Amino acid sequence: MTKQFHDNVLSDDALDQLFHEARSYNGWLDKPVSDEQIRAIYELMKMGPTSANMQPARIVWAKSAEAKQKLSDLASEGNKTKIETAPVVAIIGYDIDFHEHLPWLFPHTDAKSWFEGDEAGREQGAFRNSSLQGAYLMFAARALGLDCGPMSGFDNAAVDKAFFADQPRVRSNFICGIGYGDASTIFDRSPRPDFDRFNTIA
Amino acid sequence: MTKQFHDNVLSDDALDQLFHEARSYNGWLDKPVSDEQIRAIYELMKMGPTSANMQPARIVWAKSAEAKQKLSDLASEGNKTKIETAPVVAIIGYDIDFHEHLPWLFPHTDAKSWFEGDEAGREQGAFRNSSLQGAYLMFAARALGLDCGPMSGFDNAAVDKAFFADQPRVRSNFICGIGYGDASTIFDRSPRPDFDRFNTIA
Repeated sequence: MTKQFHDNVLSDDALDQLFHEARSYNGWLDKPVSDEQIRAIYELMKMGPTSANMQPARIVWAKSAEAKQKLSDLASEGNKTKIETAPVVAIIGYDIDFHEHLPWLFPHTDAKSWFEGDEAGREQGAFRNSSLQGAYLMFAARALGLDCGPMSGFDNAAVDKAFFADQPRVRSNFICGIGYGDASTIFDRSPRPDFDRFNTIA
Repeated sequence: MTKQFHDNVLSDDALDQLFHEARSYNGWLDKPVSDEQIRAIYELMKMGPTSANMQPARIVWAKSAEAKQKLSDLASEGNKTKIETAPVVAIIGYDIDFHEHLPWLFPHTDAKSWFEGDEAGREQGAFRNSSLQGAYLMFAARALGLDCGPMSGFDNAAVDKAFFADQPRVRSNFICGIGYGDASTIFDRSPRPDFDRFNTIA
């Protein structure tokens, strides 16, 4: 039986850690992130919902100096140092042929057949759902006491070739530095919209 | 000064509430969600990171029976009852012309100019970042003791016309039921991949 938490609001400290005080960092403390931490992030993020449990995200966690340099060489000027100095940078890609895995990921019906022959639909679904998974990754990292620095300024086609050459149906979505943020590298938080600016209750 | 939470792992209960025990519900208890709760979800979700703080999500929270019926009429067969019975359904759209707001959302530089004349790039950025924001919405709802049921099976163009007619540059992304999940309406959790299946540490 699923445990439910109806009307249980997380503690102020937990809300601060996940939302109010969490920031996107531009620089990092000189403190490594272990393989165990990377695996722990994935163990949490994979619990998040995706359409028909498609789980389209394919991730390369660039941790070695060589991998980060290779990624930095393909990134926009403003992202190079962020990449090189992050303890690890997750390259979040998505598999356009995710439907091949649905027989074991969504075993109670023939979901694979819903996606066959519709590559444009799969591309859109994989992009949407791998973006969701990228957000789950960030919340998982934050929940484990780590900080994030997401970035989308890089040459996607070149990154696909450099990091997903063995998975030719995978396309990069965005990348995310993970580590212990250096508070001296961030500015004041950018303004946030009032509810009524971008929301309607109908 | 930003508060940091380095190496502070959230409690097991909080991780259960957000990740391990959270489920996508197909049915709902007969218990309303208030406007105050909807606003509280947005107050949390808007803190999440978007590229250049673009905040492209535009949300219609369908709460009245009329609004839910209108949405249900445009949804796939399997989603109609889920929509009609949910206390509220968030219709998460994205503004292709989000860059018009960057002068106040990202005030320290001329970010608007980065996006001018590149509608395809804006569409991609708005789709990616509104998907991230949809994930933040779900984690915000869960953090407040609510449950979610995300769906993408509906006629996007018709929903745009029905709910964003006054915002012709907004496109629907996905929708999400929010309420108190009825545990009798869900099945066993679908399998989750082992780390080594879809991840590489480089």
